[in-house]
Amino acid sequence: MKLVTFETGGQTAAGFLDGDEVVVCAEGEGSRTAVLDLIEAGETGLARWLSMSGRRIAVADVQLLAPIPTPRRDVFCVGKNYYAHAAEFHSSGFDSSAREQVPLHPVIFTKSTTSVCGPGDVVKGSLDPTNTVDYEGELGVVIGKRCFQVAKKNAYDHVFGYVILNDVTSRQLQKDHNQWVVGKSIDTFCPMGPWIATADEVGDVTALELVTEVNGEERQRVKVADLIFDIPTLIETMSRTMTLLPGDIIATGTPVGVGIGFKPPKYLAEGDQMRVSITNLGVLENTIG
Amino acid sequence: MKLVTFETGGQTAAGFLDGDEVVVCAEGEGSRTAVLDLIEAGETGLARWLSMSGRRIAVADVQLLAPIPTPRRDVFCVGKNYYAHAAEFHSSGFDSSAREQVPLHPVIFTKSTTSVCGPGDVVKGSLDPTNTVDYEGELGVVIGKRCFQVAKKNAYDHVFGYVILNDVTSRQLQKDHNQWVVGKSIDTFCPMGPWIATADEVGDVTALELVTEVNGEERQRVKVADLIFDIPTLIETMSRTMTLLPGDIIATGTPVGVGIGFKPPKYLAEGDQMRVSITNLGVLENTIG
Repeated sequence: MKLVTFETGGQTAAGFLDGDEVVVCAEGEGSRTAVLDLIEAGETGLARWLSMSGRRIAVADVQLLAPIPTPRRDVFCVGKNYYAHAAEFHSSGFDSSAREQVPLHPVIFTKSTTSVCGPGDVVKGSLDPTNTVDYEGELGVVIGKRCFQVAKKNAYDHVFGYVILNDVTSRQLQKDHNQWVVGKSIDTFCPMGPWIATADEVGDVTALELVTEVNGEERQRVKVADLIFDIPTLIETMSRTMTLLPGDIIATGTPVGVGIGFKPPKYLAEGDQMRVSITNLGVLENTIG
Repeated sequence: MKLVTFETGGQTAAGFLDGDEVVVCAEGEGSRTAVLDLIEAGETGLARWLSMSGRRIAVADVQLLAPIPTPRRDVFCVGKNYYAHAAEFHSSGFDSSAREQVPLHPVIFTKSTTSVCGPGDVVKGSLDPTNTVDYEGELGVVIGKRCFQVAKKNAYDHVFGYVILNDVTSRQLQKDHNQWVVGKSIDTFCPMGPWIATADEVGDVTALELVTEVNGEERQRVKVADLIFDIPTLIETMSRTMTLLPGDIIATGTPVGVGIGFKPPKYLAEGDQMRVSITNLGVLENTIG
């Protein structure tokens, strides 16, 4: 099932994709949190949605939003989680957590809820006073159940689904502030979508391939299998000391090919088009404004 | 006004302090978010609360919770924001953001919502597998209005009030993971309270004095005036690129005297009692379990 939140006729609604149509399951008040509420409802959530499903609208006639437009808390992210990217970032001069090139433990930071935007939204690059805006195409894991101290072997039981994220970053602010929240949390710097695919829809997540293009030029291409710390390791590590909540989003890290991997760096400028695609998860396109 | 959330007779409620009594303004469903809702309601919030105020209960007969038991998003924190602490942390060997002793820009990170606990709650030190638990007494600023690009001179207009926080930390996890979310977000590692004092109740916040004691021994004592990046600078810097929301909490940083400032480090052990007090903001006491 591919879950979407969208605007149609000036109203927010939520539902699921069926071919070229969206099937509406929630409209009006509360529909902005409908996908989150569905995840929190657990086993009964999807069945209830299906029972509420109603009219169909052509996808072309709606404006898709981030499937969770306002997360309950900040988006967890993983830094330096593909080998070749860890190398390019470490040698770029922007790695403020620079003891080792390949981290021995997952590097976890957050992007603020207010940085989330949806497919097609303008990413306000002009908000970065340092003009060092960079893209990071990533696979996002959506947690399905409140959980604590989950062993690797059970980790996938706690995954609701997957979504594309673009961890847009101000490289200079990321470096200047040492900890990455400021450089990562600029308003609109967390495009997410176009849908959350449930885990059963995805199957073997390690087989998924991520591709990022800028203005039609391929910059990143990787299999999820190449993660340094795989999804079970991330869930085990994070939940060892911290309760994870339904609807929590973990952006698993970006592969080699970001703008600062080039010499000189290729920063994004007004009008640049970013396009992140992942097998089965659709295409997330955003323009820099 | 001193706003509190509490449990009484097995129910959650919220209200304000009046001498040795709490005046109840919200009970039952929704009272866990009542303080947050009051802040979000803006100018009318306090007046509405006063109109709803009802029975009085002796403070001794209630169990105070964190005034915002479940923040809408993660707690913002500032690292290395008093000179002598920046020096002790930098020389401790635990500073993974170690380019310079005194940061040139505020070091901003987050503690997860699930780390929040209240006055008197046990801080589960046993959850830290590295046995390197440390205290950090801090002043917390509570944002009152949604705001963006606030100039320093207007910053205090956006402050709702103040609260004590203890930024309890696993030093080894803080170092191992480079970015600090894991080491800072262990369940129960963010005691907060006992109340939020509104800005008018506090007056000149820079005159407040913070004292931290462990097992009755004074470890930290500082005036808020000694912050490296003062409250207006923090609000200006963060809101330059990121929208701040009503109810956002910014822990402003801890002064010299943390456990790793000693040689050898004085880590917290089961049964240790932490006591953080700030002028007008009460006393926040928690025991390590």
